[in-house]
Amino acid sequence: MFESAELDHAIDKKTFKAQVPALREALLDAQFDLLQSRRFPVVILISGVDGAGKGETVNLLNGWLDPRDVETNAPGDPSDEERGRPPMWRFWRSLPPKGKIGIFFGSWYSAPIAEHMEGETKLAKLDQALERIRRFERMLVDEGALVLKFWLHLSKEQQRLRLKSLEANPKTRWRVTTRDWRNFKIYDRFHGVAEHVLRQTSTAEAPWTVLSGADPNYRSLTVGKVIVEALRRRLDFPDGPCNLRTVLPATPATNGVQILRTLDLTKKIGKKRYQDELEELQGRLNLLVRHPRFAKRAVVAVFEGSDAAGKGGAIRRVTQALDAKVYRVVQTAAPTDEERAQPYLWRFWRSVPRVGRVTVFDRSWYGRVLVERVEGFCPEADWMRAYSEINDFEEQMVDNRIVVAKFWLAISPEEQLRRFQERGETGFKRFKITDEDWRNREKWDAYEAAVCDMIDRTSTEIAPWTLVEAEDKQYARIKVLRTLCERIEERL
Amino acid sequence: MFESAELDHAIDKKTFKAQVPALREALLDAQFDLLQSRRFPVVILISGVDGAGKGETVNLLNGWLDPRDVETNAPGDPSDEERGRPPMWRFWRSLPPKGKIGIFFGSWYSAPIAEHMEGETKLAKLDQALERIRRFERMLVDEGALVLKFWLHLSKEQQRLRLKSLEANPKTRWRVTTRDWRNFKIYDRFHGVAEHVLRQTSTAEAPWTVLSGADPNYRSLTVGKVIVEALRRRLDFPDGPCNLRTVLPATPATNGVQILRTLDLTKKIGKKRYQDELEELQGRLNLLVRHPRFAKRAVVAVFEGSDAAGKGGAIRRVTQALDAKVYRVVQTAAPTDEERAQPYLWRFWRSVPRVGRVTVFDRSWYGRVLVERVEGFCPEADWMRAYSEINDFEEQMVDNRIVVAKFWLAISPEEQLRRFQERGETGFKRFKITDEDWRNREKWDAYEAAVCDMIDRTSTEIAPWTLVEAEDKQYARIKVLRTLCERIEERL
Repeated sequence: MFESAELDHAIDKKTFKAQVPALREALLDAQFDLLQSRRFPVVILISGVDGAGKGETVNLLNGWLDPRDVETNAPGDPSDEERGRPPMWRFWRSLPPKGKIGIFFGSWYSAPIAEHMEGETKLAKLDQALERIRRFERMLVDEGALVLKFWLHLSKEQQRLRLKSLEANPKTRWRVTTRDWRNFKIYDRFHGVAEHVLRQTSTAEAPWTVLSGADPNYRSLTVGKVIVEALRRRLDFPDGPCNLRTVLPATPATNGVQILRTLDLTKKIGKKRYQDELEELQGRLNLLVRHPRFAKRAVVAVFEGSDAAGKGGAIRRVTQALDAKVYRVVQTAAPTDEERAQPYLWRFWRSVPRVGRVTVFDRSWYGRVLVERVEGFCPEADWMRAYSEINDFEEQMVDNRIVVAKFWLAISPEEQLRRFQERGETGFKRFKITDEDWRNREKWDAYEAAVCDMIDRTSTEIAPWTLVEAEDKQYARIKVLRTLCERIEERL
Repeated sequence: MFESAELDHAIDKKTFKAQVPALREALLDAQFDLLQSRRFPVVILISGVDGAGKGETVNLLNGWLDPRDVETNAPGDPSDEERGRPPMWRFWRSLPPKGKIGIFFGSWYSAPIAEHMEGETKLAKLDQALERIRRFERMLVDEGALVLKFWLHLSKEQQRLRLKSLEANPKTRWRVTTRDWRNFKIYDRFHGVAEHVLRQTSTAEAPWTVLSGADPNYRSLTVGKVIVEALRRRLDFPDGPCNLRTVLPATPATNGVQILRTLDLTKKIGKKRYQDELEELQGRLNLLVRHPRFAKRAVVAVFEGSDAAGKGGAIRRVTQALDAKVYRVVQTAAPTDEERAQPYLWRFWRSVPRVGRVTVFDRSWYGRVLVERVEGFCPEADWMRAYSEINDFEEQMVDNRIVVAKFWLAISPEEQLRRFQERGETGFKRFKITDEDWRNREKWDAYEAAVCDMIDRTSTEIAPWTLVEAEDKQYARIKVLRTLCERIEERL
């Protein structure tokens, strides 16, 4: 869930300064139109890791927007008035009316997360609280509100560097308290809880936008741009699916930095090492699946990737290691009539392995948020809700001790072209493949954006995505096999 | 939640026999149209108390419908195949395709309820399971399914009588096991759990229909009629709000029996007794509110009822007992501009009392499911979702140790007319009141249906409705005061 947010998103001062005037004007314009129309209220949540710039972002928005029509709700202990009433009372009284913007810095998420981190509440209790939040936000959206939730993220290293740099400067040294370092120590636990919270509350009607808080320029521009885009969409298309703001990616790449492009596709492995490792890993996988404890486990391995990325070859290297009675490969093509008459997840539920078995999906339920999204085969509202339905589906498998391993095989468009041509030369319809290829290339960017969204919204702590650099097929096969072995070992 | 279902709904054999042929024909017609259109699947759940006729109902439906296009899923322990997979797998594989009907007798509700009853899971765990169910059902509806959930209810006395009558008959004696009597002993606990489950899962998209299972004729006709009505609505109005089936009342009064009409409005109290009890109860209420432990409690008293039912007089008898600093009476009129710019519950949240205080609502948030529903002031989808939003709101108050007491003051239409005329004689615009009165009278039935739905959907174990026979004002005032004292005492 934080994959994209952990990339280096820095934007230099010059670019920042050049972009700010237009952004500020667009923000003020949108705010003016909102106030004139009085059609809906805007609820903005600024949450995230300590030190990721939550306060600075709130201050900035107050500076950029017309503050007369913005109400900011700062955190802090509840007042005497508030303590005597149900916890949500303080938020209800601060809701913005139609036409105005309410910024919540320290929102309804703060207390449930803090109580869980302090060990006061078990996971089931946290989930109860999250469920109430989900119902509250759904009510807000049903009542017309535009709900924008930002999570400002810092990697562990970024948080450490920030504390160190504050300490190094005599002017800011006082800002670093022992409490800050104590919080830093529980970073990993907080990270896990945050991921759980985001997964449970990233709904179709009010999804989270997760972004890096490390660079102030990137952070500020991104939050501003997302707000403008979401506002304009609601203001300019009043009859559209108003509750969705799905043109917005899960992690906005406002500076062009996105996760697929950061992969090092030059990674290679020599022939000799490939042969050795292949043999060792296939043997290891075979032993794992025959392990007595595997009788109560199962594996679901999902393979996605561009055309010609080498999914088939990688799958064969996995199945070669397995007894034919143990595994099944499910090829996902266009749905049959029988499948079309059912909810879209139905055909994948059919193939969920029983204990002791392995099911390999050559393409999968992710088709809904990839090809169906990009090609327009299903409406936006449907693929948007699919993210959380998919997370629910995978959670049920994991709860049932199924290891869910998901692989995205990445190649460059140039390599794809080369492989298509190679196929064309050995096949007999070269011209046809080139046609398809050009069409693919036109949509390459749209697919890339859909893949990044998929990773950010469905790479969860329980079922993470593994991005596989597949320009070198042998490197990809080894990475797949090793990851699969490790994932099974973790759970055995 | 079981108020209406506990009434005597018996339908005699003759009426039953007269109605069945038309109903069966309508069912088969609807089923045929469904199959021809192949537009959506129908998922029917038959749940409820043991002995309320779940199995009989399923058999009956299979007899009445064309069984070739109905798939029935009987309960029973999961098979070997099913045990090796996530618990929901067995239900996914049994989902009906578009155009067909799937009957689930023993559904996804069975295991969570049973595990909780056996003490294996705490409330928070049960809530987690219910939340998953809610998401599953929402997905089904989003994917186009018509989901009809029936809960067959028996009162404790009805269940006892049934067991006794089975035992009395030598032919059926063997059917009563010690397990049945053991289940009967935990009736009260099961009742509480069932109420919780229904409250948590009666959503706008898939609400429960709760009905009495005591009389087979009523039960069969009602289930059949509800299915026909829901099917026809989806088939005949394909562009309507297809996920709602809100023309259907929470507890169908297919035999004309409904809760408001069962009240004994002749209840009276003499003047002397009234004076004595009034004095005693007002003193008792005053002491309760001054009790040291009340400093951590609060009271929300809601008064609803027909025009001229005597709400004002009853409220005055309550406030007379209280120190002016402690209470506030909120008159609910049409919303102001400021209130209209917010979610509809916002203006009531504003008035939630702090600890140690009492707020009396003269009309309330129930306006949304009464006047706004009947007069068409808000769309069906909005008032339909209001039931669960209201339950959430009241749950938050109760969780915060606020006693929520809700009173419906009931009078007959004749008494209302008399009171209007009386007012007209003492006032100066008699003709005007008579106009209004006639308009009211025309909508009396619609209001009555809305009130019954409100009671069945929002009278919960934590915030029950008290129905007050208000034909005699003095009787009503005493009942209100006594109930209020008892509710506070329970919670102090």
